[in-house]
Amino acid sequence: MTEFVDLAVAAQRLREAENILILSHKNPDGDTIGCAGGLQWILRSLGKQAAVLCGDPIPEIYDYMNIEPFEGQFHPDFVVAVDVASVQLLGESELMLEYSENPNLCIDHHGGNTGYAYETVLDPTAAAAAEIITLLAQELEVELTPQMADCLYTGISTDTGCFKFSSTTARTHRIAAQLMEAGANVEELNGILFESRSTARLEIERMALESLEYYLDGACAMVCLTKEQIQESGVAPAELEDLTSLPRSIEGVQVGLTLRQQPYGSYKVSVRTTKLVDACAIANRFGGGGHARAAGCELDGSQESIKELLIQEVTAALEAATARQQEEQTEQQEEV
Amino acid sequence: MTEFVDLAVAAQRLREAENILILSHKNPDGDTIGCAGGLQWILRSLGKQAAVLCGDPIPEIYDYMNIEPFEGQFHPDFVVAVDVASVQLLGESELMLEYSENPNLCIDHHGGNTGYAYETVLDPTAAAAAEIITLLAQELEVELTPQMADCLYTGISTDTGCFKFSSTTARTHRIAAQLMEAGANVEELNGILFESRSTARLEIERMALESLEYYLDGACAMVCLTKEQIQESGVAPAELEDLTSLPRSIEGVQVGLTLRQQPYGSYKVSVRTTKLVDACAIANRFGGGGHARAAGCELDGSQESIKELLIQEVTAALEAATARQQEEQTEQQEEV
Repeated sequence: MTEFVDLAVAAQRLREAENILILSHKNPDGDTIGCAGGLQWILRSLGKQAAVLCGDPIPEIYDYMNIEPFEGQFHPDFVVAVDVASVQLLGESELMLEYSENPNLCIDHHGGNTGYAYETVLDPTAAAAAEIITLLAQELEVELTPQMADCLYTGISTDTGCFKFSSTTARTHRIAAQLMEAGANVEELNGILFESRSTARLEIERMALESLEYYLDGACAMVCLTKEQIQESGVAPAELEDLTSLPRSIEGVQVGLTLRQQPYGSYKVSVRTTKLVDACAIANRFGGGGHARAAGCELDGSQESIKELLIQEVTAALEAATARQQEEQTEQQEEV
Repeated sequence: MTEFVDLAVAAQRLREAENILILSHKNPDGDTIGCAGGLQWILRSLGKQAAVLCGDPIPEIYDYMNIEPFEGQFHPDFVVAVDVASVQLLGESELMLEYSENPNLCIDHHGGNTGYAYETVLDPTAAAAAEIITLLAQELEVELTPQMADCLYTGISTDTGCFKFSSTTARTHRIAAQLMEAGANVEELNGILFESRSTARLEIERMALESLEYYLDGACAMVCLTKEQIQESGVAPAELEDLTSLPRSIEGVQVGLTLRQQPYGSYKVSVRTTKLVDACAIANRFGGGGHARAAGCELDGSQESIKELLIQEVTAALEAATARQQEEQTEQQEEV
């Protein structure tokens, strides 16, 4: 079991290390990559050697971070995982298997972190792990450069849907202000991260709108894309990611489901919910996981059978939520 | 001509007034309504009478602001316009004409403010006029309530596309943090303002995607919706508003144009640009106006003739921008 430590301890460990390997989770998003890039530059400013290992290729849109990929160019004396909730999320590339077994440190904001590292800094109130890395820089007395700020802003803005998700706090905004003052090229970054959609992306969006189905009197909406559609559109996997917010965004929808067929046939399911329903609980039932409002799982079988299973589970979750809500209202009335 | 004054003077004027009429611009957006609601509650906390007059009905989604519409229930001794760049934008309802001629004060962030009020607080660095109203509350030593914070957060978040637009500054984020700490129900507001799309909205989005045309090697993209399509979809005018960011959001597009036919037949044109091109200059050519990246105008004529006129203007603007860019590069090379 891991030991939970604070940022002062984490900073001390990093100060003592010299050759530091940073690990990001597979299927990398802006937060794990932004944390890795930010930490790489923070550590280098302290005269350390630092490089980043990710189980999957780092998407090109993050090229501006100037991340150095780890390819065995030094012998790490310290391994730190950023924004990685479990060791399984590190993936199984040969190089990863060599270093992922027992990381010295994990810095994360997922409440469900499995405690796989020797020591862990866990702050589930952070909207993004990059928020914690920004505070770590302060702890290390590193003055943020524009390059660091670009990385950290990427983590925070992508993990909060550009400050839209319920995880965003006053601290998130204050840190964003600090990063802007440190020189983050926010305008350019927002353009890259949020305002640029390829024609392929627009094509798959049209297909998604066509596949849209409503269930349970409109409380659940589902989008389903086959592997053929995904291939035909030419869309990159990363671009598909934020399509998952579409069904939940429809008025009256409490649970939004997005099914994306994988190249090998099974369906990746993204569950997005309002505060009424626990997305993670639904995903858990199928061996998945995530956050309270955004979770995911993967299911084998025919499209029809998967849809049926999911709707059963969503029905149960919605019924439980409605019962809970009525109970709370009754209690409030009794108190009055 | 108006006298430009600072917030201290504006605060003094409001302190001296008793019965205050607040004016919002017609076709109201979250900023002008958020400012009006915020200021109404700020003034009431100081014991003043305050109500809001808007040339068009206030959209229902802003009901949570609990704005009191002005219907002649008191005799204003002070009139203040918020987020209104010109007197024309106040509209011409009978009640408005009675009070719009010479407002005592205007609080605005549009660089092109025409100076129609007796005194004007103008801060073009503010991402939203609601940013200025928040600072005004501080100047008035009013402690922000959750109700005020809800109104002001609405103004800031809607005018910045939830902190995405280039107008967003470090100060914008700091003020957002303050408003969250004052109790703004950000989660609920973001749900209402950004994450809720009606089925009608999705339907018009599908139509927009179908109408999408590319010009000038993909540097310009255009969406065109007829009044029949808009009617058929059942979409509310306010919901159409943020569709205008769609064409510009496509990779490689420098100028995005959205044409929406009005009930009386003419076309409302929204111009959205990257930093390469001045949207306001394009709109100006057709008697419109706005900001550098987002502007608008209205054109009469057939769809085809309007498209041709617009593309001519966009071609000229893009050619000028490219020439300017090359010039700058040459200068930089000469300096090296």
